[in-house]
Amino acid sequence: MNMTKNNENRTILPEPTIRRLPWYLSYVRMLDNMNVGYVSSTQISKELNVQSSQIAKDLSFLDIRGKTRIGYEVHSLVTSLEDFLGFNRHHDAVVIGTGSLGTALMQDHGLEHYGLNIVAGFDVRGDVIGKQLGGVPVFNIADLTSWQQEHGVSIAILTVPVEKAQETADLAIASGMTALWNFTPYRIKAPEGVVIANTSIYAHLAIIYNRMQEHEQ
Amino acid sequence: MNMTKNNENRTILPEPTIRRLPWYLSYVRMLDNMNVGYVSSTQISKELNVQSSQIAKDLSFLDIRGKTRIGYEVHSLVTSLEDFLGFNRHHDAVVIGTGSLGTALMQDHGLEHYGLNIVAGFDVRGDVIGKQLGGVPVFNIADLTSWQQEHGVSIAILTVPVEKAQETADLAIASGMTALWNFTPYRIKAPEGVVIANTSIYAHLAIIYNRMQEHEQ
Repeated sequence: MNMTKNNENRTILPEPTIRRLPWYLSYVRMLDNMNVGYVSSTQISKELNVQSSQIAKDLSFLDIRGKTRIGYEVHSLVTSLEDFLGFNRHHDAVVIGTGSLGTALMQDHGLEHYGLNIVAGFDVRGDVIGKQLGGVPVFNIADLTSWQQEHGVSIAILTVPVEKAQETADLAIASGMTALWNFTPYRIKAPEGVVIANTSIYAHLAIIYNRMQEHEQ
Repeated sequence: MNMTKNNENRTILPEPTIRRLPWYLSYVRMLDNMNVGYVSSTQISKELNVQSSQIAKDLSFLDIRGKTRIGYEVHSLVTSLEDFLGFNRHHDAVVIGTGSLGTALMQDHGLEHYGLNIVAGFDVRGDVIGKQLGGVPVFNIADLTSWQQEHGVSIAILTVPVEKAQETADLAIASGMTALWNFTPYRIKAPEGVVIANTSIYAHLAIIYNRMQEHEQ
């Protein structure tokens, strides 16, 4: 795969495609673990409930094309997807707010399989500062800027209480972080050039409740 | 607010609106805690980076309209949003898979503020079965169906390893659960009428990596 081409493709990649690629990856990883050699888009389609024409289109962004009547080579599809999604490279991150969710993320070694390496936690609570959670040291939030000057980490994971979301984001950005993974239900404002991904689990709850009510009628 | 009207509105509510409503709620809850009486859509717009015409449109689904030059009454806006989103009602749920993420959700009392009441955990691991996590009892997954016949819970939270996602979902559905909150990166198949909400945190990681690379170019 040509790297320049890859990069060009990256910039025009639509978000729905980026959301579907990890589905394909988790499925073909499973096949790879079972030593399956080839998989067709029809099979992926049947398994994941995505139209096979859509799968072919999504994978063409990665310059991956299946062979007629054989399909995609499973192992190389796993590698290509991991490369393309960035899951094969190490990305250092800090967790700000080491409550139950923050601690879970620090302890979740699953994230490492997706290239995310949590190197530090930050908090205001005296009972956790100086300790380790899931093998990751926790520092005082007051030391974030000086810590960051030394370590230069790009990604901050925000798991603070909602009323602290914006000020924590401001602090992380002022410290030089360029990507915020926001788990609070607060809609964070940030200057252009700062990447924000919102994982708003409460919004998903609202969707569940709403759709359940629909079905009950 | 008329209940029939409310139900009618629910069914046609577009997903982007449902996703924005919790943002409004978290902001106006904060204002309410600060004893702020009124808020204009312009102010919400500035704070949350959503166009004020969009805010007015979203809130009109709830039959909420602001007063000219005064805006929305904060406290009643909080109550209306909570009612509408279902966060004021109790919804019982079980967690299947009590690993780090599952345990975090069982310990996260934040979910209670959104109407979610986790009443049981299920797992295959002998070291957790029969214990309590965050005050919630953990049972053997083999007992899910019989437990469910007694308790009739509708919502299953899936925090199992990805390769167990589909079989766990099948089991939950066969046991009579009608809504699955899927935290695995696997794209679950389910019969019509079963609500599925995917919180695919790994897909969000892919988006972060991709967008960061864009900015670096």
